[in-house]
Amino acid sequence: MPRVIVSAAEEILEKEYKCLNHGFVRLIDYMGSDESIVQAARVSYGKGTKTIREDRTLIRYLMRHHHTTPFEMVELKFHVKLPIFVARQWIRHRTANVNEYSGRYSIMPEEFYLPEKKDIKPQSTTNRQGRSEEEIPLEIRQKVLNLLMEEQKSSFNGYNEMLESNVSRELARINLPLSLYTQWYWKIDLHNLFHFLRLRIDDHAQYEIRVYAKAMGEMVNRVAPLAWEAFEDYIFNSITLSKTELTALKEFFPEEIPNQKLEQLDLSSYEIAELAEKLKKIRKL
Amino acid sequence: MPRVIVSAAEEILEKEYKCLNHGFVRLIDYMGSDESIVQAARVSYGKGTKTIREDRTLIRYLMRHHHTTPFEMVELKFHVKLPIFVARQWIRHRTANVNEYSGRYSIMPEEFYLPEKKDIKPQSTTNRQGRSEEEIPLEIRQKVLNLLMEEQKSSFNGYNEMLESNVSRELARINLPLSLYTQWYWKIDLHNLFHFLRLRIDDHAQYEIRVYAKAMGEMVNRVAPLAWEAFEDYIFNSITLSKTELTALKEFFPEEIPNQKLEQLDLSSYEIAELAEKLKKIRKL
Amino acid sequence: MPRVIVSAAEEILEKEYKCLNHGFVRLIDYMGSDESIVQAARVSYGKGTKTIREDRTLIRYLMRHHHTTPFEMVELKFHVKLPIFVARQWIRHRTANVNEYSGRYSIMPEEFYLPEKKDIKPQSTTNRQGRSEEEIPLEIRQKVLNLLMEEQKSSFNGYNEMLESNVSRELARINLPLSLYTQWYWKIDLHNLFHFLRLRIDDHAQYEIRVYAKAMGEMVNRVAPLAWEAFEDYIFNSITLSKTELTALKEFFPEEIPNQKLEQLDLSSYEIAELAEKLKKIRKL
Amino acid sequence: MPRVIVSAAEEILEKEYKCLNHGFVRLIDYMGSDESIVQAARVSYGKGTKTIREDRTLIRYLMRHHHTTPFEMVELKFHVKLPIFVARQWIRHRTANVNEYSGRYSIMPEEFYLPEKKDIKPQSTTNRQGRSEEEIPLEIRQKVLNLLMEEQKSSFNGYNEMLESNVSRELARINLPLSLYTQWYWKIDLHNLFHFLRLRIDDHAQYEIRVYAKAMGEMVNRVAPLAWEAFEDYIFNSITLSKTELTALKEFFPEEIPNQKLEQLDLSSYEIAELAEKLKKIRKL
Repeated sequence: MPRVIVSAAEEILEKEYKCLNHGFVRLIDYMGSDESIVQAARVSYGKGTKTIREDRTLIRYLMRHHHTTPFEMVELKFHVKLPIFVARQWIRHRTANVNEYSGRYSIMPEEFYLPEKKDIKPQSTTNRQGRSEEEIPLEIRQKVLNLLMEEQKSSFNGYNEMLESNVSRELARINLPLSLYTQWYWKIDLHNLFHFLRLRIDDHAQYEIRVYAKAMGEMVNRVAPLAWEAFEDYIFNSITLSKTELTALKEFFPEEIPNQKLEQLDLSSYEIAELAEKLKKIRKL
Repeated sequence: MPRVIVSAAEEILEKEYKCLNHGFVRLIDYMGSDESIVQAARVSYGKGTKTIREDRTLIRYLMRHHHTTPFEMVELKFHVKLPIFVARQWIRHRTANVNEYSGRYSIMPEEFYLPEKKDIKPQSTTNRQGRSEEEIPLEIRQKVLNLLMEEQKSSFNGYNEMLESNVSRELARINLPLSLYTQWYWKIDLHNLFHFLRLRIDDHAQYEIRVYAKAMGEMVNRVAPLAWEAFEDYIFNSITLSKTELTALKEFFPEEIPNQKLEQLDLSSYEIAELAEKLKKIRKL
Repeated sequence: MPRVIVSAAEEILEKEYKCLNHGFVRLIDYMGSDESIVQAARVSYGKGTKTIREDRTLIRYLMRHHHTTPFEMVELKFHVKLPIFVARQWIRHRTANVNEYSGRYSIMPEEFYLPEKKDIKPQSTTNRQGRSEEEIPLEIRQKVLNLLMEEQKSSFNGYNEMLESNVSRELARINLPLSLYTQWYWKIDLHNLFHFLRLRIDDHAQYEIRVYAKAMGEMVNRVAPLAWEAFEDYIFNSITLSKTELTALKEFFPEEIPNQKLEQLDLSSYEIAELAEKLKKIRKL
Repeated sequence: MPRVIVSAAEEILEKEYKCLNHGFVRLIDYMGSDESIVQAARVSYGKGTKTIREDRTLIRYLMRHHHTTPFEMVELKFHVKLPIFVARQWIRHRTANVNEYSGRYSIMPEEFYLPEKKDIKPQSTTNRQGRSEEEIPLEIRQKVLNLLMEEQKSSFNGYNEMLESNVSRELARINLPLSLYTQWYWKIDLHNLFHFLRLRIDDHAQYEIRVYAKAMGEMVNRVAPLAWEAFEDYIFNSITLSKTELTALKEFFPEEIPNQKLEQLDLSSYEIAELAEKLKKIRKL
């Protein structure tokens, strides 16, 4: 008796989301949905919910209160083609499964990342790890592109020359640049994917990995739309204030906010109580 | 465009495999199959295979050589009802996702593990952690059962009494015994599941967890039959000989074994070469 | 050439911090300190710091910006004696190493958790997982204690009876209650310990595990005092406001706060810029 | 009261073990020893041991029977300088903590891996992932070296040129080759280190990572010599025979081996019984 899977995610399954000049990310398979999160929460927290509205409330509660294990019950598998310097940032997330193309077994294809002219930017002076929003003169950007292309060509010629001399693949490849494309299958659960996305969609992440993170965010929105919405509201677009920052702002916080207003803002009765609790805690600082 | 999943695993999806007196394990969902293992290996090791026969050869090669990452691309999710003392052994496997029924949120149901009479056995004298195969007199076994039942009943009465006095659930439950049933959703990838099964189907594991491990083994055999077969041949039914054991046996090993014989035994040409290599290594000790 | 280790942590090494009626936590060993965090950060983020004041600034920067990997370079090992129901909550933190006393190998000692009278409280009506702050009549609390003690005694008698009948240890123990004490060695890195402490010092955690978490917090404060201070300021005592909460509060937030005031509050120039950034982001909602 | 640490590992602490042309590995810190393994095992398996001879027997028992958790109680921290293509293989081991030099924050130094002439070898025809033991003509090896050096120089000139044009560091570095050196702090527990060493000292690993693995093996031998010896005897120099291989060899295995001989070979009475068990199992195939 075959099973039929209906989900907005089916429409994009295996489709290439283009990233950078030659890269892509494809959703290859997934297991679970918003319903699986609810199902797992139900076993922990009791009898559970019956309507989609209640599902939404429960998922938002779980997200807000860092009850992360139900989100681990959803699993996604991607096929990604990406430059090696992006792969090196990506792989630092250890809670995932990976199978990467191997330059020891196979010959690397001649595909390199080249930035678009608009993305060639100067070193930021305020952010030691990133690009400034300033402009670099067009002729310099063109020069940079030429330089990158020439070197990529020359290093690949060298690679070919060594392979033709029958040098072992594992050695012939060592001068290939970090801009070379590789590819992998990458499988991760939704909780850990949210952690990845939070860090890699962020402005502090390098532009080239952000492109992939944003594409995966759209895919998550198809697999588990309620979880994605909760992630955006409670994690990605939230702001954390330190003890000292709260002290500095203390006098500005109101004693309370009219419930009527809060309900208009789509705050559940739980959240209204939680916000009152926060305000009380701040006043006590 | 909905997707249709056809697999021998579909036939048993959500079905209860009874374990012990009140427990069960159910396969709730899974992602991947033998084909996913091959697909992931293909990205690492090159162009890949076209027939099921080649798939089998590749999967067996991966298993034999501890190329474990392709097996991580298959994921299984189980719903398990199990006594707490089994859950405590089970949870030591850290590379899985878990959502357990919570005695802080919900009232525990009155269900306890009682061994069958045949499983009440004396302490082993050779194996400090296990049961002997010797017999215990029948009247003692009956006495043990009565003792267990009485205590289970009495502790649950105490639990109820405290709940009725409105003692918080998180405190009322602390005298419930380890034989009480709990339940959880448990999700794990196939590589880590094989590791679990290797240790927990083994004779050294406690009988009560072996029952669950064996049921899950049957389920794996439906999700990824070629991988399961390889696991049985190369891992579960293999024997490892230490350097000193090999030295002791050295003189008995033959110089070589006729290929004809090896082929009859379903050893591939790769494996024949590998066995020759092993024999050579042993001779050199 | 032996090495000499000088640290405020040496004074408490191996000392028992009493927890609950029979439990304890002891710091058995540790590797690293605030200096190791700085050392690891230095390799990633460049040339580094020279004074303790700069160390503090760097550690606070790392904590605030979720640069968690340098904190993973500090490792702590504890010896803990704890009731099994606490152990079951504790073990859910998977990123640690554990060796627990085994009831299959050894006979369990007769030691049970008994709450103090003051800690026997009714079920909370607002918090489904916890105790209320209300009182339970004293005679009921006494009754609960008597009930717990009787059952503990009776279940241990049953255990002994089965052991004397030579029933295997692994089976004789199954009716022992969750209030029985066990013990283990538990080793974890500082980043993951902070995650544990954040959740387990919190008011939502069960009182009995909070006692242990607080004791370990004091120990961390000796091993890495600057990291602990940063954890308290930026994580434990911070407050996160969701997108909707920020919208509700938006009108109350000031355009800016005078630098003079912020400096008095011990906000570094970095943090002042970051707070301005946050206020700007909120205004844009 | 400061603590004094005496261990053979102290003599090599922070010392550079040279690896390849510019690389090294240094043991920066460690926690635990053979005694810690015994201490952790003792809590699980009972009252424990009193002499070094008994410690050795226990550690060997643990290793042989895959009781891996006590080995997790020892932790080692290394500082490593290594080419990026080696780092990419290394990082696939996920159960470790890492802080790597960042090309976004800092300027990469001009240091590249160049193989020695003797290590430039042709592609293996039998091993798809490795080098053959055949020779490549000397003039070709010289040509390869020249090619590698020229490209390394040229790519670093390009890097410098882009930095001088104020292109952001994160972009300027993308054409640097995989032969460039990076460095990191790497921390791991002994069980997971053994797993790493088993795979990376092995002949199938790329020569350039084997060099590091072997150096770390020597360091382990100083931190926990009994554990290292057990690893060599039971894991690294053991041979696993599959079910089919055992069937092929079955007729050659003896019924039994005289105990006298086995004792001469340093097999404990436990191991003698285990070997008899293995022979019995093989006969039954």
